Amino acid sequence: MAGRVTPMAGFPEFLPEGRIVEQRVLASLASTFELHGFASIETRAVEPMDELARKGEIDKEVYTVKRLHAAADEAAELGLHFDLTVPFARYVLEHAGHLQFPFRRYQMQKVWRGERPQDGRYREFAQADIDIVGQGTLAAHHDVELPLVMLEALEKLHRDLGMPPVTMSVNNRQLLEGFYRGLGVAATETAFVLQSMDKFDKIGPAGVRALLQSRTLELAGEEVTMPDDLVDKCLALASIRTADASFVDAVRALGVQDPLLDAGLEKLAAVVETARALVPGRMVADLKIARGLDYYTGTVYETTMAGLESLGSISSGGRYDSLATDGRTTYPGVGLSVGVSRILVPLIGRGALRASRSVPTCVLVAVDSEETRTQAMATAAALRARGIAAEVAPVADKYGKQIRYADRRGIPYVWFSTGEVKDIRTGDQVVADPQTWTPPAADLAPQVVQSPVAG
Amino acid sequence: MAGRVTPMAGFPEFLPEGRIVEQRVLASLASTFELHGFASIETRAVEPMDELARKGEIDKEVYTVKRLHAAADEAAELGLHFDLTVPFARYVLEHAGHLQFPFRRYQMQKVWRGERPQDGRYREFAQADIDIVGQGTLAAHHDVELPLVMLEALEKLHRDLGMPPVTMSVNNRQLLEGFYRGLGVAATETAFVLQSMDKFDKIGPAGVRALLQSRTLELAGEEVTMPDDLVDKCLALASIRTADASFVDAVRALGVQDPLLDAGLEKLAAVVETARALVPGRMVADLKIARGLDYYTGTVYETTMAGLESLGSISSGGRYDSLATDGRTTYPGVGLSVGVSRILVPLIGRGALRASRSVPTCVLVAVDSEETRTQAMATAAALRARGIAAEVAPVADKYGKQIRYADRRGIPYVWFSTGEVKDIRTGDQVVADPQTWTPPAADLAPQVVQSPVAG
Repeated sequence: MAGRVTPMAGFPEFLPEGRIVEQRVLASLASTFELHGFASIETRAVEPMDELARKGEIDKEVYTVKRLHAAADEAAELGLHFDLTVPFARYVLEHAGHLQFPFRRYQMQKVWRGERPQDGRYREFAQADIDIVGQGTLAAHHDVELPLVMLEALEKLHRDLGMPPVTMSVNNRQLLEGFYRGLGVAATETAFVLQSMDKFDKIGPAGVRALLQSRTLELAGEEVTMPDDLVDKCLALASIRTADASFVDAVRALGVQDPLLDAGLEKLAAVVETARALVPGRMVADLKIARGLDYYTGTVYETTMAGLESLGSISSGGRYDSLATDGRTTYPGVGLSVGVSRILVPLIGRGALRASRSVPTCVLVAVDSEETRTQAMATAAALRARGIAAEVAPVADKYGKQIRYADRRGIPYVWFSTGEVKDIRTGDQVVADPQTWTPPAADLAPQVVQSPVAG
Repeated sequence: MAGRVTPMAGFPEFLPEGRIVEQRVLASLASTFELHGFASIETRAVEPMDELARKGEIDKEVYTVKRLHAAADEAAELGLHFDLTVPFARYVLEHAGHLQFPFRRYQMQKVWRGERPQDGRYREFAQADIDIVGQGTLAAHHDVELPLVMLEALEKLHRDLGMPPVTMSVNNRQLLEGFYRGLGVAATETAFVLQSMDKFDKIGPAGVRALLQSRTLELAGEEVTMPDDLVDKCLALASIRTADASFVDAVRALGVQDPLLDAGLEKLAAVVETARALVPGRMVADLKIARGLDYYTGTVYETTMAGLESLGSISSGGRYDSLATDGRTTYPGVGLSVGVSRILVPLIGRGALRASRSVPTCVLVAVDSEETRTQAMATAAALRARGIAAEVAPVADKYGKQIRYADRRGIPYVWFSTGEVKDIRTGDQVVADPQTWTPPAADLAPQVVQSPVAG
């Protein structure tokens, strides 16, 4: 390969140092998910176009995939997956006979969207998803469990790697739909109201009011424009945001009655109260959250990260009554996805998270001359056998140059044929045996180092 | 998503149990590579078509990628990478200013080829590559080092996970080209001889003879058909295979003289002798290995796995004088790739490798009733805080049903609200405290279990 190379917008790549941060983040997420019994799966990158196109609006953002020498008039039949939910649904249907339900899986893979690249939007990015899916039924307590798993995973990233803390906002579609029905809105119209309310953050209360009153809708059996007092109630509901179950009283105070509203309030209270006990300060009931166009039917989740609020939600999901169906059996589920690239590209890019060195190497074994390279290799092998990453200097240069080789990579130790090891940060040099010498635990592998978030 | 699903030929996917095996294999490979100072990188899945098409014959197997709503006459500009070498070369050029050379990287990603799916050939498969690349120069000792890293990685898979042992066959292009030149073959013709010899395993010595004599070539300054006695020497060279440096004498006995031959013999002897000392029994000098169409210029490697010889080489690579060039600077390298899917799809598919359970969960915490679910969650949380993967039973069924839930997944322990934990394999039940109870190490995470290779 020859010539200059132009970076491709929307396809972020990390340098080795940034990749170390990403590896740690992915390993930390996987560890939390596995502690909760989620099994890893990976699905193929491509799905049939007719499956991908099924999910409404997104079809324009799909990348199609075709063999180079396919006939020119051959329709594109495959596309790159744009999320991990559609492939997971297909995987569940395809392998249902070999899976145990409820099936708990996590999946960490790249996804692709043909969107215009802009801040926080990429054409290729990594996601990490967790879902619990049942066969026929799935108990409501999984709506409580799932956000706790994700919050625990994100809290661990905050605690162990210095990532910013998060706030998860939770709502319940049954609560919203029940409330609108209690106002007299026909069941066929609640989706319109919900999607209007979903624009609250973008267009503000006046914008939502204008949208709600932009057409007539069936209200208490009549085709009317929604009257101001009902709009007021919808906006009042959307303004409720509490860190505990006190939202229940705030909703009750609006005087709306409906059995579905009761069911939604009860479920949301269970989620919020359990989170308050187990992961205090990280979850709020926020009744303007709707996740407008997604096919959720119960609890919905959105998450913001401190300092990265402009990115919008970095972890979203919800309850769906039917992830997939084969005609006879329906698979309800609850899922949450975290936008790994979405968080890491800006944090690594602005230096807020970095690795303490750019290589795994802990010890560089210096070489006196090419004749004694084998001896240096034996020293390195002895260190590796004890789990200490070591490489041998590529050239038998003067020691000063070999030390600079280590320094440029952040390798903390240089081992000399005299049987001495130098900490090149402090200059301390001690006699040591590769069979017994052990570096401080913090030097064994690169550490993720946190800097104050700039910009 | 609804309807039946048809598996897609050439796009293998693992069930959760198989995925656990794959995860262990990838983690083991990464661990060895990192112990040797290789840094992880990932490159984007797509590259510009003109870069992908550069590597000769392979272009017909490329998948092109296009936005669904791109104009019909818009040429496909992107393709999915078909290996990890082309993207790595582009990465090196693009990021050279931020990398330290010699740059040691490993890369474990999916690649895609539009080939006809058949045994051992997939349209999507995982590879793990290691390369060392220099800026301007790269010392010859890296040709010795690199196969030792890969052999150590494959030996660890054999020792720790029960994968079949491997044999790496090594040769040197300089040795071959020097030998042919020493026979009088013109420098412009050695590639023809080398590519003919490369078909040795497929078409046998008679086939190679016919191929070599199928056209005239420039020999000692004349255009002639290669005479039988020179063909005999080429075939004699190809038949040399030794586990130590004794191949040098065997080559010398053929009476051919050339300085390039000498250089190749010396380099190959260094590789084989070092491997014999450090990873005994796993490497042979095999002078028929040529890796015909690849752009190698020195050492070449191929690897077979016991019982999977029909797959051909599972780990191949070599030395190339120019991985990439930007016109001013050339980047020589040496690399080896291991076909992770190629090995694992058959081994997992035929049950030769499997996981001891299908979930990470070590303990299922039973639930007496929905009212006491929170208590069960606290028990599970206490276990997880100590690194023990635990999940809470999804339904407060009779204990027998909850035990069957665990059994179907291979979860070894069930915890009861009485403060007792049962090993459901033995039926042993003991009083235990979630703050202190620890399972045997072998039960903590799923183990890879080896069965005799069938079929």
